[in-house]
Amino acid sequence: MNLGDYIRDVPDFPERGVVFKDITPLLKDPEALKATAGALFEMVKGSNIQKVVGVDSRGFIFAPMLAERLNAGFVPVRKVGKLPYKTVSQSYDLEYGSDTLEVHLDGIEQGEQVLVHDDVLATGGTASAVCKLVEQLGGVVVQCNFLIELQFLNGRSNLPDYTISSLLTY
Amino acid sequence: MNLGDYIRDVPDFPERGVVFKDITPLLKDPEALKATAGALFEMVKGSNIQKVVGVDSRGFIFAPMLAERLNAGFVPVRKVGKLPYKTVSQSYDLEYGSDTLEVHLDGIEQGEQVLVHDDVLATGGTASAVCKLVEQLGGVVVQCNFLIELQFLNGRSNLPDYTISSLLTY
Repeated sequence: MNLGDYIRDVPDFPERGVVFKDITPLLKDPEALKATAGALFEMVKGSNIQKVVGVDSRGFIFAPMLAERLNAGFVPVRKVGKLPYKTVSQSYDLEYGSDTLEVHLDGIEQGEQVLVHDDVLATGGTASAVCKLVEQLGGVVVQCNFLIELQFLNGRSNLPDYTISSLLTY
Repeated sequence: MNLGDYIRDVPDFPERGVVFKDITPLLKDPEALKATAGALFEMVKGSNIQKVVGVDSRGFIFAPMLAERLNAGFVPVRKVGKLPYKTVSQSYDLEYGSDTLEVHLDGIEQGEQVLVHDDVLATGGTASAVCKLVEQLGGVVVQCNFLIELQFLNGRSNLPDYTISSLLTY
């Protein structure tokens, strides 16, 4: 099964000149959905992971499926103000301005081994902020795990200290 | 395992006087995460489901796990402007103003049997809009499936034509 066949190019989204990689054809196919979760798991299996961190909102799709396969818990990272309990936060730069991500203070315990998952690695700004959140709580980032890596945006240069694994690269 | 033990009450969130049901303690526990996905599946198993629709963003956590268990596809419903491809949309009233949800035009095919999942049934406004989206595409809503039902908000009165199943009620 070639999972790349289930990714759709959508031109001019979210803005003119950008070609968006749409994962919804993959999600709606039962076999492709399962195969993707299995292949993401293959990239990390054998590691001793206690928590899988997923990034709001498309990171929420596969992170819990990975957590189940790893016998780990799932911890959501969200935009500022969305999580109800006490949080730690991390700001990061966008093309214009900045944004802030949060995780619950009790989401990760000191010394826990953590898998960070998101659907797409673009510039790496989001993933870098997520790794810093994990480390603020004393967690150890074992791997940053992506469904898609947009290599031309060179996101790895923002994540020099981490192991990066991507299923599909463009 | 009493899954209710893993739900945390957070007072005054998102606003003063509201007690928020925080599911993150359940998500971060590996056994509770699996048991919840299993129990949500028990409520619908035996039905012939082709698509599981999950509502952005906490509905994305269990809907794909349910899709995997049902051998179905996963289809995201999102706020207006978030989905990249052609969509159908449905507006619904909020306490103040209104909001609009969208689903991809090719997310559901005519006659498909659909499970609608979200984490919380409150007033039922969101779920009702999601059911209408499914029906705009010719899908048949077999069940609306929730982790938590806030019975005092009487959400079922907004969903008279559907089968409602909730794992935890308050």
